[in-house]
Amino acid sequence: MVQTEKRLAELGIVLPPPPKPAANYVPCVRVGNTLYLSGHIPLVEVDDGTGGKTTTLLTGRLGNGPNEMSVEEGYQAARQVGMNILATLQNELNGDLDRVVRIVKLFGIVRSSDDFNEQHLCVNGVSDLMVEVFGPERGVHARSAVGTNALPLSACVEVEAIVTVRE
Amino acid sequence: MVQTEKRLAELGIVLPPPPKPAANYVPCVRVGNTLYLSGHIPLVEVDDGTGGKTTTLLTGRLGNGPNEMSVEEGYQAARQVGMNILATLQNELNGDLDRVVRIVKLFGIVRSSDDFNEQHLCVNGVSDLMVEVFGPERGVHARSAVGTNALPLSACVEVEAIVTVRE
Amino acid sequence: MVQTEKRLAELGIVLPPPPKPAANYVPCVRVGNTLYLSGHIPLVEVDDGTGGKTTTLLTGRLGNGPNEMSVEEGYQAARQVGMNILATLQNELNGDLDRVVRIVKLFGIVRSSDDFNEQHLCVNGVSDLMVEVFGPERGVHARSAVGTNALPLSACVEVEAIVTVRE
Repeated sequence: MVQTEKRLAELGIVLPPPPKPAANYVPCVRVGNTLYLSGHIPLVEVDDGTGGKTTTLLTGRLGNGPNEMSVEEGYQAARQVGMNILATLQNELNGDLDRVVRIVKLFGIVRSSDDFNEQHLCVNGVSDLMVEVFGPERGVHARSAVGTNALPLSACVEVEAIVTVRE
Repeated sequence: MVQTEKRLAELGIVLPPPPKPAANYVPCVRVGNTLYLSGHIPLVEVDDGTGGKTTTLLTGRLGNGPNEMSVEEGYQAARQVGMNILATLQNELNGDLDRVVRIVKLFGIVRSSDDFNEQHLCVNGVSDLMVEVFGPERGVHARSAVGTNALPLSACVEVEAIVTVRE
Repeated sequence: MVQTEKRLAELGIVLPPPPKPAANYVPCVRVGNTLYLSGHIPLVEVDDGTGGKTTTLLTGRLGNGPNEMSVEEGYQAARQVGMNILATLQNELNGDLDRVVRIVKLFGIVRSSDDFNEQHLCVNGVSDLMVEVFGPERGVHARSAVGTNALPLSACVEVEAIVTVRE
């Protein structure tokens, strides 16, 4: 087992299966040593009640109004997006996350009511995960956190990423 | 005529004129073999009623409320943005789209009411166009689809792109 | 004093201190000769009333409704974001902005009411600043301008940037 995967085990993290796009795009495109990752959303594997697994999506909106979520729930949802990003990376890198050189940039979009202004505290969920897993030198990144009124499938958060890797 | 332009003709696609920014920016910046394209909006050339052409913009909002558009209209608008992106690429590459190596990433922003959640189905309009024109190896890309409450000039969709090219 | 810094002086520009992230991310990550800058917001240094300086943030929303701002105010706020971006660049480049090769791309997000559609006129504030400081060859960039209903800390505008540099 490689070092980064050992670290995942220490943290008690079990990655979900890598997400599969349902249209004419892919989760990740590589240009030289740079990976461009598609916008990922907080998919979660849960028991389906019959001994199997099914995938569900964390939906809702931060701030006041219908489907209200707390900042802590937004933080956990952003962390879950990070799990999906790690699953895509692991799949792209043939199971070896040690090949990640640097999490370069994250762009996090939080579904928000008009008066919600703590998107940055939610996006910390994915930022903190990257530093926990890759350590400060490889995991600390540039980042933008913004709000929006609407996201696909009513996801509460979406994150895209740029990552450098080695052979 | 080069191969990609032959493919455009087979598809019956006539590209609009490349868009011209009205301020201190350009439609495209090249760094090495990577093109960074500005956000493009759905400009359409239409007859001006006197035998000439004029350019109009597809405006509106997906979901419920004023200027409501259907998902199919959003799809067609995103496809039209793709036409404008192709026009910018063709202009940048001296008329030779064969020099496109890969559509790397698209970022699609759909103007949405708060409860609209099918932005991904709209952005498929530009994703499908890229695969029709460039084929799966060069045309399939990473992508993010998000919503927003407001876009410049009330455009219904805006898309930016990263594209790799060869000499 | 180097040329770009002379130009700043000619323009009467005094840069604010470079912004410091309050979480697990950094203002800027370098990959080869490319800098990826985090989303910057309009922080301003003001007198604190006791002879010192304090930092405040330009908050509000473009368009109709509470905390309404004019397009001119939005333009000035975007220009102020540009000041913060320049401060980050200067800090990253050990005080020498002559090492900036090209402002490659800006992504500007303007906090907007649902009917506001002049985000591009606001984002011109940062675009114009880059061309004033770096001149047309280094300063003209690709760019996207979009709206959103919500931003961190109620900032009225946020801008991220990609910049190429030399040793």
